[in-house]
Amino acid sequence: MPRIEHITITPIAFREPPLLAASGIHQPWAIRCIIEMHVEGGIVGLGESYGDRTTLMGLEVAAKRLIGHDATNLNRIARASSEAATEIDPLLAIRGTSMPTPHAELELRLAGGIEVAALDAWGKSTGMRLCDILGGQVREKVPYAAYLFYRFGHHIGFENEEDEWGEALTPEAVVEQAGQMIEKFGFQSMKLKGGVFAPEVDVETLNALSEAFPGIPLRVDPNTNWSEETTEALIPLLLGKLEYLEDPVAGMDAMARIQAKSDIPLSTNMCVTRLEHLPEAISKNVVKVILADHHSWGGVSKTMHLAQCCTTWGIGLSMHSNSHLGISLAAMTHIGAAIPGPIYSFDTHYCWEKEDVIEGGLIEFEDGSLGVPEGPGLGVAIDQDMLKRMAKNYANLEFEYRDDASEMLKYWPDWQAGVMPKF
Amino acid sequence: MPRIEHITITPIAFREPPLLAASGIHQPWAIRCIIEMHVEGGIVGLGESYGDRTTLMGLEVAAKRLIGHDATNLNRIARASSEAATEIDPLLAIRGTSMPTPHAELELRLAGGIEVAALDAWGKSTGMRLCDILGGQVREKVPYAAYLFYRFGHHIGFENEEDEWGEALTPEAVVEQAGQMIEKFGFQSMKLKGGVFAPEVDVETLNALSEAFPGIPLRVDPNTNWSEETTEALIPLLLGKLEYLEDPVAGMDAMARIQAKSDIPLSTNMCVTRLEHLPEAISKNVVKVILADHHSWGGVSKTMHLAQCCTTWGIGLSMHSNSHLGISLAAMTHIGAAIPGPIYSFDTHYCWEKEDVIEGGLIEFEDGSLGVPEGPGLGVAIDQDMLKRMAKNYANLEFEYRDDASEMLKYWPDWQAGVMPKF
Repeated sequence: MPRIEHITITPIAFREPPLLAASGIHQPWAIRCIIEMHVEGGIVGLGESYGDRTTLMGLEVAAKRLIGHDATNLNRIARASSEAATEIDPLLAIRGTSMPTPHAELELRLAGGIEVAALDAWGKSTGMRLCDILGGQVREKVPYAAYLFYRFGHHIGFENEEDEWGEALTPEAVVEQAGQMIEKFGFQSMKLKGGVFAPEVDVETLNALSEAFPGIPLRVDPNTNWSEETTEALIPLLLGKLEYLEDPVAGMDAMARIQAKSDIPLSTNMCVTRLEHLPEAISKNVVKVILADHHSWGGVSKTMHLAQCCTTWGIGLSMHSNSHLGISLAAMTHIGAAIPGPIYSFDTHYCWEKEDVIEGGLIEFEDGSLGVPEGPGLGVAIDQDMLKRMAKNYANLEFEYRDDASEMLKYWPDWQAGVMPKF
Repeated sequence: MPRIEHITITPIAFREPPLLAASGIHQPWAIRCIIEMHVEGGIVGLGESYGDRTTLMGLEVAAKRLIGHDATNLNRIARASSEAATEIDPLLAIRGTSMPTPHAELELRLAGGIEVAALDAWGKSTGMRLCDILGGQVREKVPYAAYLFYRFGHHIGFENEEDEWGEALTPEAVVEQAGQMIEKFGFQSMKLKGGVFAPEVDVETLNALSEAFPGIPLRVDPNTNWSEETTEALIPLLLGKLEYLEDPVAGMDAMARIQAKSDIPLSTNMCVTRLEHLPEAISKNVVKVILADHHSWGGVSKTMHLAQCCTTWGIGLSMHSNSHLGISLAAMTHIGAAIPGPIYSFDTHYCWEKEDVIEGGLIEFEDGSLGVPEGPGLGVAIDQDMLKRMAKNYANLEFEYRDDASEMLKYWPDWQAGVMPKF
């Protein structure tokens, strides 16, 4: 069992396209952190997590508590993460951050980041791939969905960086984006990030996508920016067109009321985000599909438990994504490869990334899917030069928390931050 | 990853005391099987499972299907077990066995046996203890409960083998048995196997135990031999005296009706015996405590999922036991040591055993608890001489299925086999 010698947490930033969502617009820089867990034998396990100040503080504290423990001791990682969340809670209060993270959420985030590094170290120490540690590979390829966004052509202040995708603010432009994305990555399912414009626009976009790509499963996620009344009115327009409808409204009760009235399966990554939410979610029949996320659910082990619960209760399973790089993508792929039950194609922002912190650069999709990377653990290694460059990007930033709402006001001064639902 | 070269399944038999339960009396011989999984590197992983003909047939078929696969591939073991259950189903029908095992139950039994051997091989190949593989040790000692039985002094035909415990057919004698057991093993909780005599006798025994051992948590298990009416009438007499009441009545609905009316927590190992039973059990609030059993729940991995579900839903967890030897006891101890949530002391018949198939003989309890055996994997090794002796015992038997009911008729010819509930 490889003992943990030290853990380094490196905040990084990488360029991000101006993708629109209900909560605002993706900032020009996405922030993440890379976790390097150095264990006995010169082996380094890799993890990737959020880059906000709170997570970084928590990871530093948890990391110190784990020195000398076995990398395989996932229960110890959970405990250290819980202790770290408790320890930094008062600090957060003193600093008066505007983005307090609930303790229960924070401890799961910390464990989520560290556990991946620990499992990678475990795998590299024993020659096992992560999917082997998780019970063995059951599918050759893990399918991902095209993640379609309304978006601007470039960020304010980055006028020279118009990318290959260009502006997409109309249904026609999103159809074009989808076509590009399918051609480039081979995706066989699509998800539209909705809730940006009036719902009629989303419906029009979905209709246009259905027409342009018949037979390709389609999802839409307005991120709770619809009211219950609006959602009820939209259901007949969406019926038969969606694989599932993600988080139309906020809260388990409202979601359950919609699900009770609708034949469209609902999904969520917003109102069911921890194992402890399952009892209420299941008893209220809130959704038919849950979007897992090992970063926020407490790690790979908790995600595998969630997957087993989904099989046991007959709930569908997909995976949620924030902007992320290849370490997280590799972890998601191993998880997807080892889940014995059925899965929906996973969400990923990865199709929007232009560079990666791992050796070899961006991982390439094949027919919209990924095989498990070769080699033990996650099967990926850090490009140290790129890590340094991305760490420098982060050091030059003037923000410590992602804030899509403030960014949005630069583009649409009349946009009402914090008003939800807008439609 | 250690590849499976071959797996041997050795049925064994060992002497068993004449313990009484609702279903009859333990036969003079308990039958089990020992699984030896030979993997690359000359390592042998050990498992222990049921010894009935159906399980043996299934294990042989599953074992063949696993040759060449990685011992760590628990998903493959589950699949091979399912396939084996399907393959032998028709054979069972042809042979007209009187003890058909449902497919869903059989495949979990097969996986339950093989998975322990696979995890032991995994551990021995990597230097990890089973509890390390399961997420890490969270408690030094795993508590077990004294398992009190009404019993005869000796089996018919074994008059010379009266053991140290002697006959216990009265409340007073059971109190004496409990005293002996606590003195010998240090147990700090007790379970009475009830349902043998009229419930008034059980109540009298429980009262006598409470009086003799104040403060020691007490459980009773009539194995569904009480009617709902009887149980309702007994509840006021048991209130405040029991840690929990195990399987008073048959079926989830009847259990739920009792639980709804009673402040005594109910537990079960009879109506909730698979992960797929959890949705109904939870929605109907059937029990407050579930007794896991890795042998029948599909293995260690499924047991760990169950434990997580119990934590998530706020259900108590203990562990059920059939007659078993040290390999199973070691597995139970590793599982108990690695479950992050709270556990009730585990059941075990082990206190009744006189010899073991593992090197060093019987494992010794300390204060009613067990620490995790030292060494990788399960931390136990086979005593090959004893294995041969116990295999010879089995070869000399004239039965292939445990049949406590027929045995009972030798003692009490008027006993009504198959009539349940009797009270």
